[in-house]
Amino acid sequence: MINEQELKKLLHEVSLGNLGVDDALKNLKDFEYKDLGFAKIDNHRTIRTGYPEVIFCQGKTPEQVAGIVKYMDSQEQNILATRASAEHYEKVKQLCPSAEYFEMARAIVVRKQNTEKTKTHIGILTAGTSDMPVAEEAAITAEIFGNEVRRYYDIGVAGIHRFYNNISEIRQAKVLVVVAGMEGALPSIVGGMVDKPVIAVPTSVGYGAALNGLAALLGMLTSCASGVSVVNIDNGFGAGYLAGMINKL
Amino acid sequence: MINEQELKKLLHEVSLGNLGVDDALKNLKDFEYKDLGFAKIDNHRTIRTGYPEVIFCQGKTPEQVAGIVKYMDSQEQNILATRASAEHYEKVKQLCPSAEYFEMARAIVVRKQNTEKTKTHIGILTAGTSDMPVAEEAAITAEIFGNEVRRYYDIGVAGIHRFYNNISEIRQAKVLVVVAGMEGALPSIVGGMVDKPVIAVPTSVGYGAALNGLAALLGMLTSCASGVSVVNIDNGFGAGYLAGMINKL
Amino acid sequence: MINEQELKKLLHEVSLGNLGVDDALKNLKDFEYKDLGFAKIDNHRTIRTGYPEVIFCQGKTPEQVAGIVKYMDSQEQNILATRASAEHYEKVKQLCPSAEYFEMARAIVVRKQNTEKTKTHIGILTAGTSDMPVAEEAAITAEIFGNEVRRYYDIGVAGIHRFYNNISEIRQAKVLVVVAGMEGALPSIVGGMVDKPVIAVPTSVGYGAALNGLAALLGMLTSCASGVSVVNIDNGFGAGYLAGMINKL
Amino acid sequence: MINEQELKKLLHEVSLGNLGVDDALKNLKDFEYKDLGFAKIDNHRTIRTGYPEVIFCQGKTPEQVAGIVKYMDSQEQNILATRASAEHYEKVKQLCPSAEYFEMARAIVVRKQNTEKTKTHIGILTAGTSDMPVAEEAAITAEIFGNEVRRYYDIGVAGIHRFYNNISEIRQAKVLVVVAGMEGALPSIVGGMVDKPVIAVPTSVGYGAALNGLAALLGMLTSCASGVSVVNIDNGFGAGYLAGMINKL
Amino acid sequence: MINEQELKKLLHEVSLGNLGVDDALKNLKDFEYKDLGFAKIDNHRTIRTGYPEVIFCQGKTPEQVAGIVKYMDSQEQNILATRASAEHYEKVKQLCPSAEYFEMARAIVVRKQNTEKTKTHIGILTAGTSDMPVAEEAAITAEIFGNEVRRYYDIGVAGIHRFYNNISEIRQAKVLVVVAGMEGALPSIVGGMVDKPVIAVPTSVGYGAALNGLAALLGMLTSCASGVSVVNIDNGFGAGYLAGMINKL
Amino acid sequence: MINEQELKKLLHEVSLGNLGVDDALKNLKDFEYKDLGFAKIDNHRTIRTGYPEVIFCQGKTPEQVAGIVKYMDSQEQNILATRASAEHYEKVKQLCPSAEYFEMARAIVVRKQNTEKTKTHIGILTAGTSDMPVAEEAAITAEIFGNEVRRYYDIGVAGIHRFYNNISEIRQAKVLVVVAGMEGALPSIVGGMVDKPVIAVPTSVGYGAALNGLAALLGMLTSCASGVSVVNIDNGFGAGYLAGMINKL
Amino acid sequence: MINEQELKKLLHEVSLGNLGVDDALKNLKDFEYKDLGFAKIDNHRTIRTGYPEVIFCQGKTPEQVAGIVKYMDSQEQNILATRASAEHYEKVKQLCPSAEYFEMARAIVVRKQNTEKTKTHIGILTAGTSDMPVAEEAAITAEIFGNEVRRYYDIGVAGIHRFYNNISEIRQAKVLVVVAGMEGALPSIVGGMVDKPVIAVPTSVGYGAALNGLAALLGMLTSCASGVSVVNIDNGFGAGYLAGMINKL
Amino acid sequence: MINEQELKKLLHEVSLGNLGVDDALKNLKDFEYKDLGFAKIDNHRTIRTGYPEVIFCQGKTPEQVAGIVKYMDSQEQNILATRASAEHYEKVKQLCPSAEYFEMARAIVVRKQNTEKTKTHIGILTAGTSDMPVAEEAAITAEIFGNEVRRYYDIGVAGIHRFYNNISEIRQAKVLVVVAGMEGALPSIVGGMVDKPVIAVPTSVGYGAALNGLAALLGMLTSCASGVSVVNIDNGFGAGYLAGMINKL
Repeated sequence: MINEQELKKLLHEVSLGNLGVDDALKNLKDFEYKDLGFAKIDNHRTIRTGYPEVIFCQGKTPEQVAGIVKYMDSQEQNILATRASAEHYEKVKQLCPSAEYFEMARAIVVRKQNTEKTKTHIGILTAGTSDMPVAEEAAITAEIFGNEVRRYYDIGVAGIHRFYNNISEIRQAKVLVVVAGMEGALPSIVGGMVDKPVIAVPTSVGYGAALNGLAALLGMLTSCASGVSVVNIDNGFGAGYLAGMINKL
Repeated sequence: MINEQELKKLLHEVSLGNLGVDDALKNLKDFEYKDLGFAKIDNHRTIRTGYPEVIFCQGKTPEQVAGIVKYMDSQEQNILATRASAEHYEKVKQLCPSAEYFEMARAIVVRKQNTEKTKTHIGILTAGTSDMPVAEEAAITAEIFGNEVRRYYDIGVAGIHRFYNNISEIRQAKVLVVVAGMEGALPSIVGGMVDKPVIAVPTSVGYGAALNGLAALLGMLTSCASGVSVVNIDNGFGAGYLAGMINKL
Repeated sequence: MINEQELKKLLHEVSLGNLGVDDALKNLKDFEYKDLGFAKIDNHRTIRTGYPEVIFCQGKTPEQVAGIVKYMDSQEQNILATRASAEHYEKVKQLCPSAEYFEMARAIVVRKQNTEKTKTHIGILTAGTSDMPVAEEAAITAEIFGNEVRRYYDIGVAGIHRFYNNISEIRQAKVLVVVAGMEGALPSIVGGMVDKPVIAVPTSVGYGAALNGLAALLGMLTSCASGVSVVNIDNGFGAGYLAGMINKL
Repeated sequence: MINEQELKKLLHEVSLGNLGVDDALKNLKDFEYKDLGFAKIDNHRTIRTGYPEVIFCQGKTPEQVAGIVKYMDSQEQNILATRASAEHYEKVKQLCPSAEYFEMARAIVVRKQNTEKTKTHIGILTAGTSDMPVAEEAAITAEIFGNEVRRYYDIGVAGIHRFYNNISEIRQAKVLVVVAGMEGALPSIVGGMVDKPVIAVPTSVGYGAALNGLAALLGMLTSCASGVSVVNIDNGFGAGYLAGMINKL
Repeated sequence: MINEQELKKLLHEVSLGNLGVDDALKNLKDFEYKDLGFAKIDNHRTIRTGYPEVIFCQGKTPEQVAGIVKYMDSQEQNILATRASAEHYEKVKQLCPSAEYFEMARAIVVRKQNTEKTKTHIGILTAGTSDMPVAEEAAITAEIFGNEVRRYYDIGVAGIHRFYNNISEIRQAKVLVVVAGMEGALPSIVGGMVDKPVIAVPTSVGYGAALNGLAALLGMLTSCASGVSVVNIDNGFGAGYLAGMINKL
Repeated sequence: MINEQELKKLLHEVSLGNLGVDDALKNLKDFEYKDLGFAKIDNHRTIRTGYPEVIFCQGKTPEQVAGIVKYMDSQEQNILATRASAEHYEKVKQLCPSAEYFEMARAIVVRKQNTEKTKTHIGILTAGTSDMPVAEEAAITAEIFGNEVRRYYDIGVAGIHRFYNNISEIRQAKVLVVVAGMEGALPSIVGGMVDKPVIAVPTSVGYGAALNGLAALLGMLTSCASGVSVVNIDNGFGAGYLAGMINKL
Repeated sequence: MINEQELKKLLHEVSLGNLGVDDALKNLKDFEYKDLGFAKIDNHRTIRTGYPEVIFCQGKTPEQVAGIVKYMDSQEQNILATRASAEHYEKVKQLCPSAEYFEMARAIVVRKQNTEKTKTHIGILTAGTSDMPVAEEAAITAEIFGNEVRRYYDIGVAGIHRFYNNISEIRQAKVLVVVAGMEGALPSIVGGMVDKPVIAVPTSVGYGAALNGLAALLGMLTSCASGVSVVNIDNGFGAGYLAGMINKL
Repeated sequence: MINEQELKKLLHEVSLGNLGVDDALKNLKDFEYKDLGFAKIDNHRTIRTGYPEVIFCQGKTPEQVAGIVKYMDSQEQNILATRASAEHYEKVKQLCPSAEYFEMARAIVVRKQNTEKTKTHIGILTAGTSDMPVAEEAAITAEIFGNEVRRYYDIGVAGIHRFYNNISEIRQAKVLVVVAGMEGALPSIVGGMVDKPVIAVPTSVGYGAALNGLAALLGMLTSCASGVSVVNIDNGFGAGYLAGMINKL
């Protein structure tokens, strides 16, 4: 950051005509950057081609979501709306007929640009079939951000041989998203066998002592496998977003 | 249950000589049984040869424990004292020189009888080396009750191949005790691979979100594997006792 | 486990004719076993006569459950669907008219084989009448797996004399399932009086400080009676399955 | 409540001689009562013969406790100091040689008056021996308040026949204090068998899922037996005080 | 308790005519007592005139409740059904037209006998108006058990002067039930001012950190006032039952 | 406080004419004060012009709320009803046509007096748009109490530049209400940058580990910024009321 | 914040000589302010006369604390070190002999300036004597910041008449800090009687269900009194700092 | 996976000479892989040059740790021992004089190889100085794994300008580890400003409602910033290991 002495010197050079206004302005850019930097936050994800705007629909009315989508529709970015119900989609579709609905992922997507897929890919695994909605939210999120995604569903303890059968393929992913409810043991098993970053997603699948996903959350946080980090319960979006970020490194 | 009228009638029959004393006694047996039943509770574990008296030392002074052992020492049963510190043992040894101390299991044993070992055996597994004190408490408990025990320690996620290497042997146990801290995933893995009753023991090994064993406890209770039940955190004695009960069926 | 050198040597011996195919195969068995082992998981419960496939209906649509039942219906195994609503049953019945519905147990059963009942039996006890759905889930599960079951319902503190009246009969069971909500004290009482393995099932019956079954769960885990282990809140299926496993030992 | 106008009128009547001082005083009694009421709080326990002052020693230094006792010693009331360590007692004894120390109850007592014991009595029960310090705190508290106390210790599930053996005697108490740790089942059993008020005291005895007494607390609060109320974990004083209050009704 | 030898001897004396039937019966009484004791549990509350049978309606269908009431209706006891909805009442009324419904208390009452009211009374206090349903459940319960009840509602912190205005009247109660939600402070204030047993009832009134009544429950358990004990959240029945028990001492 | 002797003496002096009625009254003031003090509680908020009566609608029927409003409507105070649904408003409007409804704030307002706004103002900030209902409840509450309010909504981490852009304006507020759900970080950021009292309001916005607002609540309580205090989850009314109190100092 | 157009115009004016370098610099100040603003955070509390630097000693060694104090000692500000043990003080005193130690408040103070006390004052109340260390931390903090403080200790439920006796004086404070452990009811009582902002401080005083201060914390958050906000358990510093901030408004 | 038929056929082809040993071996690779895969787990971190063996010292005696280090010392890998006390280090140093001790990180390092540092780097940030031990554990772990690390400590809310001052440098990191206790807000702020993966590490720094790190943990899990994942409380090792994994992608 520029300090007072430097600023005074710069202004002095301008007053002497040694430095043109445009050059001074350019020099000040970095200074200004920090301030504008905050302003840019608002847009910094959207200004790069292909990055979608994201709307969290839960707690918003269909009308509100449709209104936001309509406003965004005038821009060139892809749009992703998560936690969207069928009602949300109905309203959005009226205003924006090209909108697609991914029912299991509860996601609405409006594609404006065809982003090229990454060469590396994200592996998304679930322990059970009931973890699939969360996994699909992660998958759709990662895909709309331009990532190649491979799915390995229902490979938890009850069908662990399917994990072992696919292990060499799973090891080829650049980063893994592992989704599990109940005791949430799958990320520990995967993390012990595969030398890739594992993003663990606890789900609220289960009952009683599952405590709406807390048992899985605690289990994943205390995993004895290395390379495992955790996002919020049922947070497929967060996992897909982070996996995409890592996949593109 | 007999009521007053029936009892009066029965006594009347006896007074008339219509009912002999032994037959009356037999009729009253079921009645009497319940009362004696309660009295038997006190002794029912000690009256059968080879079953030990069990002393829970935690919260007792060395003097108190030694006093109890001395009193029991006059009888013919084996004695088991759990959660015993070295200080407890020192005092006990003075009064009862034949007492043995199992340091890792924190258990004092006084053997009065050589119980024949069972032909079937109990398999005791731990996820990590720090789970061993709890596992040893289970093992010593089961052994003093006359069970054959086989140990498979440190075979959790960090060394899961050792579990797979020993799986055919592990499958030969009649019942399994699986001890694990942190995320407590091992019972799920074992329960998914081995068709035997699994007694899961969460341990307080871990830190932070392990919440002194609660994470492992919740994980084991919500295990998606069938055939798994759970005892209290660090309750090696309870697991060893129950495993012995099942092993002897 | 075989390593590359050993494998190469073995194949060399086969190529030289020094080792016959069958002998080589036998030598490889142990090696192969582990892999096939994983594959067997998928089927290892179904390949033995009379063992049912189990479907957890909660969170599945009637259409999904009916689809799975239809697929299974082509095989010779019995089918058990737990946590099934009347709606689930309606759909299943259309595809599979022989399906029975146990309303209290919320279970659908399709019987393909008449398994012979065990000679020993499982005793299932409840503290109150509102614990009966969980107990019935345990009972139906145990029965479809071929176990003889005897029910002792509503014998908790409010009617403890019924427990004492039946105590000699209860003591004849090989294993006990004890179902209780609220403070969950019954397993402690039973465990203190009966020298058989007790599988305690906390239920979500109660309000306020019952915390949806957590009070009962904690109470059962900290029971001062020996021989008691615990499954998840309301997990009748898990208790019935485990009791069957122990009953058949 | 009297308002300003009424008060002025009353004083006016007094000044005119229409209302005598004693009558005016009587009229003001109800008014005055409320104010004195607050003042009485401070002393209302001490003004009646034989009621002790109570000092909660935990968190106070031996010097502080001794200082308070010394100050009180000049008055005629009995003194009770709870949660007192041996160090507290040492200091107190120097200032007040007649002070007695009840080690198990962790209580210091200075008897100034011999209160006549009540004819009815309080029954105090414990589930285990390690619950005795809490029970003794209740007993000493009740006794110093002038109540007759009968003790029934170590009669929990592990020795429940002793409860049944003494049940007719226990039923003669006017009120019961039932102390239990771990799963805290004893108050439920007692409450189901004895038609007297039961004050349940959970203790911090136990480990793991006992959660320092929370398991017992929750169990007692959700007891299916009627006539049971609960005080704080390890709060023997509170139970003894309340039992004395009820016993003296 | 009598043992087999003694019993045999006693029967022998009867058979010899040395002991009359009535004397033998008397000797057996104590023995018999325990057994009949258990049997009496079932009925011991109903056999004394005026004590009602109590039905907990929550979780029971209107048909089930009506069925139970109909069965009881043939006996001479009063009937109390708690947690009864309007639907429960509709069904009950069809079978038993004399049934009354207390909407706020959610209680159905069938009066068979006019029990004389006690001379002493129970004071029932609430902090707010929304605590009234729980207080009314306590009041109706106490009244149907034959107790005189006086109500002091909505006298918590927001209107504490009403408590002070009524304090001399409140002090005349033999026992107090104090019902409060949110922070549950009223029992502490009452317990500090009134020297009578206080049964504190936390309610689930409140939101956020009230945690469905847990905040009030914890506050009441840790009250610094003496003479306070606590029942489960929203457990008006339990408080009214216990208050009646104490009031009748 | 005056005691009986002093009071008697005072009355005696009045009867003798040594003390005039007014002087006696003055002497008694302090005595009397306490009683009137309690009486004033009831009215002390309403007696000052412009202070509204507040009704908490949650858990009250539309009829009940309308009844209370109608009763209050005869007085000159403004009326504020919080947590009011559209149904509440419909009923209120029928009885009191001038009633206004603030939908987002879920508040009904009946304005009887035009209170002059304060010169200083309260700043109300939210982290996200879904925190706005709670913030509006705070804002409407503060405004009806006569405070000037300025709103800065949706300036949390996702749009923190808007906070920095408005920071000099925000610093001009006399007191700040900062509303945030999820991790509740905004009060920490504001408290670190602005040297004014911050009333932090956690909201139940979020899912999973947000634990219905507990995560935000704990975060705000442990904020490392100074000058931050916290009210209950979603308690916009409490924050607005307290902010108004501070703003008017 | 300045935008690009304004900046370009400003630089243009400088290049034309219409605006001097110093004036331009001054104009840019506000712009610059935001950036320097962050830098100022570090010092903005210390630059005004009399405001102390605050050191949180917990978790720091005596050497570390003494080192920080020594560094600060060269400046003119007062110094406040909280959570300081006697060991901390010993080391500090060696380097800075004028340092004072407030043992109960666990605070070290180095006074460099005599700040004039405020005319308005802060009232600090505690429920019990064991809450005094937390209250003293608040008091010392407020005093070193230049506030007049009045203390009202040990006026909780057990001595509530002392609160009522002092109520008119307490009402004269500008803001109140109310410190209480156990059930934490005092802030509710105070908030219901006094129309001033109440900063409630829960303490960890108590045992069992007090849950190390959580019971008091929850109680204070759910207080039905208006005008109450809460800081972290035992956070006397935070309460004193905030009270000072409000007192100086 | 290969099945028995295929394997027999393959062996047959080898015996016939139709398939060479090497080709057969290659065909079996995938088969064999899985088994060797398990075996490799044990060593797969050590076989690549420069990867250290990791020892978790907590709960191990100095003797045990020294023993393990001595055994490993014979190999060529670097050694990392975490959670090591000074006592651990003393014993290790005796056996292995080249061992270094990082006191703040509580880590022992034995360097056998000089791994080349990565060109990209990991940024490690802490909110406060007391979070530094956890951050240093992360830093030392990442460095011993060959990563370039840059530290930005004590830049939380109390010194947030230091974060803003370094933001352009921080943005150059490939991945960030953000360590914070108390409310744990820093990861949200960083995640909102920097478009890189953020590994959030909650610490147990704080008191009261910080709940030993749970407040920070919940806050980080519910962060509204994208790209943030979380590891266990105080798990610096886990964060450093995962950051290294991502940095090397």
